[in-house]
This record gives sequence, structure tokens and C-alpha cells, in this order.
Amino acid sequence: MTTSTSLDQVFLTDFHSTYKFGATPANGVDRQAGTREHGAIRDWFRERAIAAGMEVRVDAVGNLFALYTWDPTLNHVFLGSHLDSQPLGGRFDGCYGVVAALHAAQEINEKVLSGEITPVHNIAVVDWFNEEGSRFQPSIMGSSVLAGSMNLEKILATRDAAGITVREALDDIGYLGEDPAPIPTAYAEIHIEQGRLLERHNTEIGAVTQSWYTQKLLVTVNGEQSHTGATLMADRHDALIAAAEIVLMTERVVDTFPAEEIVTSVGQLAVEPNSPIVVPRQVDMVIDLRAHLRSQVEQARATLLTQIAEVEARRKLTVLVQDFDIRDHQYYPIEGIELTEKAAAEAGRTCMRIETMAGHDSVPMNRIVPTVMVFVPSVDGVSHCEREFTRDEDLVAGVRVLVEIASQLVTGSLDAVTPGESGVDASV
Amino acid sequence: MTTSTSLDQVFLTDFHSTYKFGATPANGVDRQAGTREHGAIRDWFRERAIAAGMEVRVDAVGNLFALYTWDPTLNHVFLGSHLDSQPLGGRFDGCYGVVAALHAAQEINEKVLSGEITPVHNIAVVDWFNEEGSRFQPSIMGSSVLAGSMNLEKILATRDAAGITVREALDDIGYLGEDPAPIPTAYAEIHIEQGRLLERHNTEIGAVTQSWYTQKLLVTVNGEQSHTGATLMADRHDALIAAAEIVLMTERVVDTFPAEEIVTSVGQLAVEPNSPIVVPRQVDMVIDLRAHLRSQVEQARATLLTQIAEVEARRKLTVLVQDFDIRDHQYYPIEGIELTEKAAAEAGRTCMRIETMAGHDSVPMNRIVPTVMVFVPSVDGVSHCEREFTRDEDLVAGVRVLVEIASQLVTGSLDAVTPGESGVDASV
Repeated sequence: MTTSTSLDQVFLTDFHSTYKFGATPANGVDRQAGTREHGAIRDWFRERAIAAGMEVRVDAVGNLFALYTWDPTLNHVFLGSHLDSQPLGGRFDGCYGVVAALHAAQEINEKVLSGEITPVHNIAVVDWFNEEGSRFQPSIMGSSVLAGSMNLEKILATRDAAGITVREALDDIGYLGEDPAPIPTAYAEIHIEQGRLLERHNTEIGAVTQSWYTQKLLVTVNGEQSHTGATLMADRHDALIAAAEIVLMTERVVDTFPAEEIVTSVGQLAVEPNSPIVVPRQVDMVIDLRAHLRSQVEQARATLLTQIAEVEARRKLTVLVQDFDIRDHQYYPIEGIELTEKAAAEAGRTCMRIETMAGHDSVPMNRIVPTVMVFVPSVDGVSHCEREFTRDEDLVAGVRVLVEIASQLVTGSLDAVTPGESGVDASV
Repeated sequence: MTTSTSLDQVFLTDFHSTYKFGATPANGVDRQAGTREHGAIRDWFRERAIAAGMEVRVDAVGNLFALYTWDPTLNHVFLGSHLDSQPLGGRFDGCYGVVAALHAAQEINEKVLSGEITPVHNIAVVDWFNEEGSRFQPSIMGSSVLAGSMNLEKILATRDAAGITVREALDDIGYLGEDPAPIPTAYAEIHIEQGRLLERHNTEIGAVTQSWYTQKLLVTVNGEQSHTGATLMADRHDALIAAAEIVLMTERVVDTFPAEEIVTSVGQLAVEPNSPIVVPRQVDMVIDLRAHLRSQVEQARATLLTQIAEVEARRKLTVLVQDFDIRDHQYYPIEGIELTEKAAAEAGRTCMRIETMAGHDSVPMNRIVPTVMVFVPSVDGVSHCEREFTRDEDLVAGVRVLVEIASQLVTGSLDAVTPGESGVDASV
């Protein structure tokens, strides 16, 4: 007890010290992928890992690894998450999982060196590149490239709004690597829930069962530019008015589904030419659809397309809609879910099964190796904002559970398990 | 007849040659205030004026003047408009009025030199700085500063979206002047209608009677940033959804007024943080309200404020609304309207009285000197877009009418007239 309490203190001190990287006035952080702030926290992580006797590697897509390789003939169990953040994001999203993994790996290393456990795999902590997808789209880049579901060269050539490529941004912060990535044999990730189900059920640990089905729609409304003063209302083909209707449809479509089984939003929207006295000619926007079931996303998409066609006809303008970034839901292996439940029980923590509405690096990893995804509670269920918060006692409970899961993984508990399945709706 | 026909040909060749400055692929122009393209057309104007024996001056706010000063003890009749354009704007808006003024002034100069007319004023052609207000807000800057209704230092310190000041932009293109502006004694401006009333009435010349009452509302919606995936719909305070409601209200409020007496729009809208997977925290937008009557704008504004308050309460977010750029309607002097009607009749052109829904440099000028505003037809009534068009025969008809008006102004026809009145609704 004394040992784990003091380990928890060391973890908390370490984790709280990351708040300074990209700190924002209202207690958040801004560390978008490939920025100086992101480079600074990676440098800190690298130094901490080297001090802990780990080998540091950076692969070609900028994934940052810290390895304990007890036997060079063996592959590695991966523990990790991401150090990048949203603009004006929270301190916990991603960063918690990386720092927790760093501490868990050190504890496992102690246990291996002391002979307490006999590993059949090595261990690697990973900070995946660009999980957030705010500066460079799509999100979840680094883990998807490693898992083979995104193309390295295409990702490196992706540009941000200022025209800077991923390759240039990585080079700029010194994280365009040439090292071989370690080969994964299993993956575990701990993350804040970002929703309010654990809080609502007064539960400390979430054992994640599946990811939601998600897709985006890239929508371009092409109207006609005209004079806001001189053009009669009847003569206008205002792209923004049509876009506003589509934004509201995106909210309303949710009402045709059971509560809390689907979420939709428009997070990005740009107006052309965006002059106060010009009726907008073009609006580009991104609709995000996520649901418990694939069929729900498909039904919402179909409803929106029908309604958008009606707007096109009524307002005599054109709307181009393209499917983008479709991510099938993934089922995490039941053996990993049970491992989390057992680990929580041993740590004396309450646990419940839960789905993830958000995407995570564990989703592509789950396609190639047995993967365990664990949540800790988010106060008020808010995330991607500066007031995102998780209590210290929940943070350390998560670390305890992660150490137990990692112990099981390095000793081969999930070796016989096939990676997660995707595609078919659980309840269909 | 032969003479004026050949003069018309010279004018058309000259005017069509301006299309190359900032030419866009779809037959429009892009010459926003203080850009290189704007500088290039001003250089062309300057050269043309010097070649025509005129004195060129640039004042402190970047207004560009070309003068015939027959008697240095006399003030100047101003003829002009503006050479800047909207982004992807049309070839006619503003530029037509400046080139027409340049040709009219040369014809007047010939008449003066030949003794055909005896002037009691000198004449100056003016290209007003930043009429459009797309890059730098508000619009109609140069003429407002000269007329004393805007402050020079405040205008020079105004920044564009990239943080560049008016002073820097003018300096960059070589038009931050130090010359004294000539002193106006009357003003005439010819411009495309930008609406479809002349076309609808199959009439060649519009004698403008008054400007509409206009104002803008700066609206900031403050919601809460959150995760588009993980945040339940009920927990969101989405700034963009609220903004979309306000955009649609702005369109709907028109329906409570008589047809074609009011226009409203949102031309500018920006989303923060504008990431595809973040629920928007803030939206800034500009609502433009314009009407035949001041009371109509005030009533529309009141309706919008009530509806916006309802959105605030229902969506639990805050909306800040600020009044901005209020422009009272102005009545052009009846003597000037009659002058236009007489000039049109003498040129054998049909003429009707018309109001202007758009703002023009003639609006602030009308406060300080007797002002005449003339319209020529716009095909389909479209403007501020690349397909803006006016036929050659209408362009040259306008030049003929402007020459006749200018002859009357330099010989003192409106000297006893008081400048235009503003404020009280005509029909109230």
C-alpha cells in the first residue's frame, strides 16, 4: 500500500507538470500536432523515458516510442495514447494515457528486474502522432499508419490550412523519424471517458466494449455571390442561408433515433468570400455523424441527403456532398474487457462496460492485435475544452488498473486472443 | 454626332482595358483596397490623367485626385467613384464611374479651352479609397474621411484580417499621400444600379433620389467547446447551431415588411475553433440590415434582438450584439435629380427616379456639397459577383449624361442648392 501510494504521488507530480506545455489562460492546453508546444512536451517525454532507462525511437510518421526490451528476440506490448491536443483543449485528453503508460511500464520493468513477473513480451510506451486531427485531417494518423489502415506517403503529404505538410511539421519539431517501429503483440490504452456515463453511474473504471460507427460528410454549398444591399431577396442564392438550414437539419436528425444513441455536429464551416457586404457564394463544411449502430449513421446520412436535395431545389443552388473518413465500429475482444474487470476488482475499483463514442488510437490497433481500452471518469462529461477535468483519485485508480492489465499482457494473458472484429452491428 | 460617337469608342476602349487589372477566370476582377491589383489600376489611372494634362494628387487617406484647375482661386467640382472591388467582384462596380468621370472631365476641359463653356469652378476626378469595405471595414472610407464623417487616424489604424493596417497597405502600394485634397463645391457620381429596377422598367438612366437606411449588427455567439463524438447532444452549447438559427431569422424577418422595401443578410461568419471534431465554442458574424425607411430597419433590429434573446435562453449560451456602421438615409437635392432628368432628355435617353439600396461615396459627399447620383442598368440586377454586367450602349449613354451634368455643375447650376438632407423618413 505504501509503495503504490508513493508511486501514485510520483505519477501525479509528473502528470501535473505536463500542464505547462502549451498552457492556456483558462487552465487548458493548446498543443496541436506538429507545433512547437507539441514538440516541447515530446522532448520532455523523451527525457523522462531516457532517464528511466528506456530506448527512444521515432518512426517515419512521427510516432514516438519508449522501449524496455528485455529480450531482443521478442515483440512488444504497446501501452500508449497521444500528447497532441485540440486548440484550447483539455489537459487530460491523450496526455493522461501516455504519462500513465510511462509510469506503468516503469513499474512493470521493476517487477521484471526483481523477478516478480516473467515476461513473454517486451514493453513499449507510445505517443501516437496526430490523434486529434484538428490541424491535419483526418485524425488518428500515427496509429492508423502503423496498423496499415492509412498510407504513409499520403499522410506525410497532407497539408494544414496554411499549406504546411505533415512531413514539414514533423521535421520542424525534430520528430520526422527514421527508426523502425517496434512490432506490437498487444495494445492497452487508458483515456478519459469524455462523456458522462461513468459519472452518472458513479463508477471509477470503464471497460470499453466497442467503438461507435462514425463518418463525416464534406459539404460544399455553391450559391451566387451578390451585393447585400442592392440585390433583392428574391434574386439571391445565398450559400450561407442554405448552409444554416443544413446545420440545423444535422441537429434535428438526431430526434428520429433513441436518446443518446447518435450524435451529429458541424464543427468546421468556412464562408466565401466572407465579406460583410457580399451575399456568400460558397460555404464548405464538415458534418460529423456517430452512432451506436452503423445502420443509424446510414439512416441519418440518407435523411440528410434527402433534405439537402430539397434545399438545393428550393433555393436554386447546388450542394455537393462527399463521404469522408468512414470508420466502422470495432469490438474490443471480450477477453480484454474481462481483463479490465478483473484488474479493477483487484484494485478495489468499481467498473462497468461502456462504449466509446469518440475515436481512439486503440481503434486501428484493435484491428491488428488484441487491444484493451479503459476509461476513467470525466467531470460533467466535457472534453475538447479547457474545463475538461478528471479528479486525481480517478487518475491514480486508472494507473493501478493499467499496471495490472500490462502485467497480464507482458505475461501473455491475451496471446491466444484474435484481434477485435469490426463491421456487423452488435444488435442487428 | 460623329464626335460623340468617336468619343464613346475611346471611352469604351479605355474602360474595357481596365478588366485586366486583377482579372479573374470567370470574367470578374479582384482588386481589394490596398492590394497590388488595386495599386496597378491606380497607376494606370494616374498615367492616363497625366497624359490628359491633369494634376494628380493623393491625400492622407489615399484618395486619388486628377485635377483641371483653370483658375487656382476656385474650388473644384468632383466627379468620381472607386477603383477597388469586392473579392471576385464585377468589372463595372465603381470602376465605371471613375473612368466615365475621367472622360467627362476631359470633354469639359476641351469645352472650356475652346470657349464653349465658361466655368465658375474647376473640376477634379476622384478615385475614393476603399469604397467596398471587404478587406478593411467599414466601407466608404475615403469619401467619409474627406466629408468629415470618419476620423483619419482611426481609419489609418484599421486592420485587415491579417493584421495589416490601412496605413501599411496604402504605403505598400505607394498611395499613402501627403497632398492637400482639393476643396469640393459639388459632386456627381455615375454607377451601375446593382439592382433590377431600371431593367424591369426598360429605362436607361436612374436619377437617384435617396439612399436607404442601413446598419450592421456585430453578433458574437459564445457557446462551449466540446467533443463532437463524446459529448451527448443534451450536454452541448453549440455556438454554430445557435448562429445558424440567427442566420435564418435574419432572412425570415424580411417577410414582415412590404416586398422589396428591406434586405438583410449575413455576409461574414467565422467559427472557433473550426475543427471538424470540436463542437464550436464561438461564432462571430455580421448582420447587414437595409431598408427604404429607418423605422423598418429599427423594427427588424428589435425583432432580431427579441428572437436572439430567446435563442440565448433556450440554448443556455450568450449572444453579444453590437450596433455598428449605422448610416442614416440621405436625400439627394431635388435640383440635382431634375438636372439628371434634363440631361437624360437632352441626350435622348429614358430616365426614372430611383432609390439606392447600396451605399455609395455620394452618400457622405451629399452631406457637405450638392450631390448628383446617376445609375445605369445592371443586367439581371446582379452585382458584387463575376457575372455583373452592363451593356456598352448603356455605359456610353451614362457618359453622355454625366458630361451634361458636369457642364452644368462647373457653370454653377447647383451653386444655390443646399447639400442633401438626412434623417427623417420620407413617408413618416
